[in-house]
Amino acid sequence: MKRYALLVAYDGTDYGGWQIQKNAVSVQQRMEEACARVFGARTCVTASGRTDSGVHAAGQVCHFDAETTIPAEKIAEVLNMHLPPDISVLNSAEAPEGFDANRSAKKKTYCYRVYLSPRRNPLKDRYSVWVKTPVDISKLKYISGAFVGKRDFKAYCKSGSQVKTTVREVYSVRVESGESYGSRDVEIYVCGAGFLYNMVRTIAGTMLCFAQGFLSEDEIARSFSDLDREAVGRTMPSKGLTLESVEYGLENFL
Amino acid sequence: MKRYALLVAYDGTDYGGWQIQKNAVSVQQRMEEACARVFGARTCVTASGRTDSGVHAAGQVCHFDAETTIPAEKIAEVLNMHLPPDISVLNSAEAPEGFDANRSAKKKTYCYRVYLSPRRNPLKDRYSVWVKTPVDISKLKYISGAFVGKRDFKAYCKSGSQVKTTVREVYSVRVESGESYGSRDVEIYVCGAGFLYNMVRTIAGTMLCFAQGFLSEDEIARSFSDLDREAVGRTMPSKGLTLESVEYGLENFL
Repeated sequence: MKRYALLVAYDGTDYGGWQIQKNAVSVQQRMEEACARVFGARTCVTASGRTDSGVHAAGQVCHFDAETTIPAEKIAEVLNMHLPPDISVLNSAEAPEGFDANRSAKKKTYCYRVYLSPRRNPLKDRYSVWVKTPVDISKLKYISGAFVGKRDFKAYCKSGSQVKTTVREVYSVRVESGESYGSRDVEIYVCGAGFLYNMVRTIAGTMLCFAQGFLSEDEIARSFSDLDREAVGRTMPSKGLTLESVEYGLENFL
Repeated sequence: MKRYALLVAYDGTDYGGWQIQKNAVSVQQRMEEACARVFGARTCVTASGRTDSGVHAAGQVCHFDAETTIPAEKIAEVLNMHLPPDISVLNSAEAPEGFDANRSAKKKTYCYRVYLSPRRNPLKDRYSVWVKTPVDISKLKYISGAFVGKRDFKAYCKSGSQVKTTVREVYSVRVESGESYGSRDVEIYVCGAGFLYNMVRTIAGTMLCFAQGFLSEDEIARSFSDLDREAVGRTMPSKGLTLESVEYGLENFL
């Protein structure tokens, strides 16, 4: 048995998220089905972490163990023959010594995308969310610093989540913006060691509320001091969220 | 009765093209249904031109005649309430004197999009076509000039098309390229007075064939001198094509 690592991209629109579950088709299920066909044996595929229902991935990383004569770098192509069009293995390699896609992950970067426009644009709607109320981009950039650091993100987590601690470290929040098709595209990149359920989508919603004038800097401060869920913006829809990349602090192995 | 002009965007994936037809749902049909609901009468919606099955539009222009008390600039919003998510009216206005979305059109710009990558990327697949064989971008830019001018594009037209003349004038062909998600995105913008059926997709296929080394400059010259269909590249799939804009030589009325 050898361990292999995969770099995977998927359009999450039609999936109930990464993780195998009863009531929806998951990306993990499709990956494990493809592995079963290629390696002729039930294969568990472990990702860097779950992505929620409807969330996309440009650079999800997974690992699995298998016995195969297929050269490691050819596995991507062979798996793709058994995967649906909305999932693609971009790269495959033998995993480094002791590698675990989930436990070895050091940093994850998510991107939340919106476009600012008086009207909906169907060509932007799949990976980005329409925002009609004007947003002040300079205020959006200004407030991004409020979310950086080791903090208690309890107010940014779906209530009822069972986690040991709601403290997480965010390394950076970066706002990029550009024009296309007559409207402004905004990308909010959030990089951290790990995230709570709904955390990135609620950070994005809070930043947007602030930049629209619906939430004050004081309120955002209170979301951390009093962990007040009323002081944060709405959790944005899943389709605007993409897992961009996962870093392992290892030399380019994928 | 007044004439109104609309700026419309649509994701063509699930449509049989712009024009009403028997065996598929068309964008025109959805537009006319929405008008019928809003204006309470059968309304013909005329576009700048047809787009083929699966082709997208970022800036299609249409007109229709109606009797209504809805202010012209509000019509966009009202029509959108009756349109499916993959069609959106971006703007509405009273049409200038004598305006006809089809006959008054002076220039159309189409964009053909591909991405160059050893592996398929589901996040790019909806509006762009995967090209696996390496493409020399500088050769792509070099050959773009070969299609500019007033020429007989018979070899670039689907055989069997019934048109009076296959001479068309192309004003410009521009190649843009950038990087995203680890692969190169290429955009081929073609601007002209009008195009034959499949012409832009066949120009794109011919340019790509040249830049991949499968077609010589001499062969492309022969496609115009001998109108030799064997001297052109393949007609690229419809999903990579977007009608970007239509110009009327009028002051911004939309």
